[in-house]
Amino acid sequence: MTHEAGIPLGIKFKLLSDTPQDSAAQVVNDVVVGDYRDLETLRAFARGCDVITFDHEHVPTEHLRALEADGIPVRPGPDALVHAQDKGVMRRRLTEIGVPCPRHRIVEDPADVERFAHEVGGFPVVLKTVRGGYDGKGVWVVRDAAAAQEPFRAGVPVLAEEKVDFVRELAANVVRSPHGQAVSYPVVESVQVDGVCDTVIAPAPDLPEELSAHAQQLALTIAKELGVVGHLAVELFETRDGRVLVNELAMRPHNSGHWTQDGAVTSQFANHVRAVLDLPLGDPRPRAPWTVMANVLGGDYPDMYAAYLHCMARDPGLKIHMYGKDVKPGRKVGHVNTYGDDLDDVLERARHAAGYLRGTITE
Amino acid sequence: MTHEAGIPLGIKFKLLSDTPQDSAAQVVNDVVVGDYRDLETLRAFARGCDVITFDHEHVPTEHLRALEADGIPVRPGPDALVHAQDKGVMRRRLTEIGVPCPRHRIVEDPADVERFAHEVGGFPVVLKTVRGGYDGKGVWVVRDAAAAQEPFRAGVPVLAEEKVDFVRELAANVVRSPHGQAVSYPVVESVQVDGVCDTVIAPAPDLPEELSAHAQQLALTIAKELGVVGHLAVELFETRDGRVLVNELAMRPHNSGHWTQDGAVTSQFANHVRAVLDLPLGDPRPRAPWTVMANVLGGDYPDMYAAYLHCMARDPGLKIHMYGKDVKPGRKVGHVNTYGDDLDDVLERARHAAGYLRGTITE
Repeated sequence: MTHEAGIPLGIKFKLLSDTPQDSAAQVVNDVVVGDYRDLETLRAFARGCDVITFDHEHVPTEHLRALEADGIPVRPGPDALVHAQDKGVMRRRLTEIGVPCPRHRIVEDPADVERFAHEVGGFPVVLKTVRGGYDGKGVWVVRDAAAAQEPFRAGVPVLAEEKVDFVRELAANVVRSPHGQAVSYPVVESVQVDGVCDTVIAPAPDLPEELSAHAQQLALTIAKELGVVGHLAVELFETRDGRVLVNELAMRPHNSGHWTQDGAVTSQFANHVRAVLDLPLGDPRPRAPWTVMANVLGGDYPDMYAAYLHCMARDPGLKIHMYGKDVKPGRKVGHVNTYGDDLDDVLERARHAAGYLRGTITE
Repeated sequence: MTHEAGIPLGIKFKLLSDTPQDSAAQVVNDVVVGDYRDLETLRAFARGCDVITFDHEHVPTEHLRALEADGIPVRPGPDALVHAQDKGVMRRRLTEIGVPCPRHRIVEDPADVERFAHEVGGFPVVLKTVRGGYDGKGVWVVRDAAAAQEPFRAGVPVLAEEKVDFVRELAANVVRSPHGQAVSYPVVESVQVDGVCDTVIAPAPDLPEELSAHAQQLALTIAKELGVVGHLAVELFETRDGRVLVNELAMRPHNSGHWTQDGAVTSQFANHVRAVLDLPLGDPRPRAPWTVMANVLGGDYPDMYAAYLHCMARDPGLKIHMYGKDVKPGRKVGHVNTYGDDLDDVLERARHAAGYLRGTITE
């Protein structure tokens, strides 16, 4: 999707891909297949690149520092990206700069989890491995010390967080360029099902103006203080008492910004590319009163073709984005965007299409 | 741009390109470099393709028939495409099905041109080689028989047409799928400078509703009667006495439809792909009251980078589409789209950006 957004800008991508079957590897012209965890692979790949960016945050921080030492601009740079790679570093830094977070600390063992639970008013508490989590993986909600064994098995430091009493999840998406220009997208509501993003509503319905401005300001502050270059997604909890707390950070185009492809003047992907290349940023404003994104998860049948035809025929305004992935149950294989004046209608269209493509709606 | 539109649909392109430097060859993953005029090259390329389509109309008709005979679906098929390849065939067929055209006939030599001029009320008349013309090439406006020598030099049949007294040029863009579904975009005004499209305004300002509906109906009729599959652009003259006459046909995404990338719910490129694959077509309606496309022509300086930065910074809502081509004076190297509520503003923004990128506006 970043390549797609780069085409009109005249940007030539070179892709380092795990396999030739990866989504991006199917559509980019210049593809190198290799392991991003191997420094020599990265070095050989980076030779001749003007700038390096990412569509995930798993490239080891020390390798990125080595590329920078070789003189290759890495954006976002490792000093920023580490906050999206390591939840312990992220919590420490956000707290230092006064950004509201759930209460948290690194815990040593299940007994320490029990002590932490006591400090924050009791179980349940949330445990996270500080590295490697994604879409609910690496995250546990534990109800007692006995259930707190598993997170420690990976040998990675474990972060404990209070279980926030939130009314919903929000996301504030901003983009920042090396010379410090920044743009902010409207704050969205992100509806999670089983720890995976299901639907995003832009803008977040009934969000008080003041809280929206506060959330955008927090995201801009984080981008600036951490030196982020490119897209920054700040996932937030809206608490029952009207505050926002930062849940997670991502420093790349993010699922909570996919709506911008069809719903904003400039998509998150285009603005990420513009930021990484230090081009002036594009207008982040919405093009319609409401835009809804719904993820298409793989269902029980591997061939979506008939469902795909049905959805296109049923709704000629539906914007489908497929990733060229093999369908596996629960895997994100695409998303749909809908937009319009009537939120109920826009929501229904997106949810119907996503459900139909998954096979959970059959009429 | 067709590849760009195919990515979200999950369509895998294989490209036959003249050179590795062609615009599409820079961004498509699977590229074969070869000569589209060579049947064996085409045959080898087509093996394994589900369907073949084009971004120009120069593949020889008889080669397309050979591919069809091999069992490869060609869309638009040669029986339709020949009308966009051969202006003589096009005029004959449009006249047969009652579509209004300028008066015309094939002429044999300069003396015959003089006779034709006499038949239509005198010089000037327009001469066109029936094949191979593009952007003003292969077209001559001649003021007397002495000036009518050149068109005959190529050894290609020459079509003479009356010089229409038009107030402006319009274009009606429609898309038709193999099972006969069709969509029609708003009729646009196309402003030509030196025989090359300069600006497109969507919809055409002050076009009477009735004439607009008539133009769209003509385009739909042509698409149906000629069996077009994919995008059909019908270039029209709006005459001083309130009629429309067909000027040219193109059976592929067309410059007069580039505004749809940012101005319509579904772009011409996306709908062309959907049609060629017999997928249900997308909504062709505009997303803004006014959208303007302005072509970026190469200017005197080969490096557009500074101008590119300036335009992005000046207008964060400007949608830039660059083709990755080397800049040569007068060559189409990209286009810009602008949209909004106020036509004067939208026009000024597009023209300023295109002029600035070309170097004809410097402030």
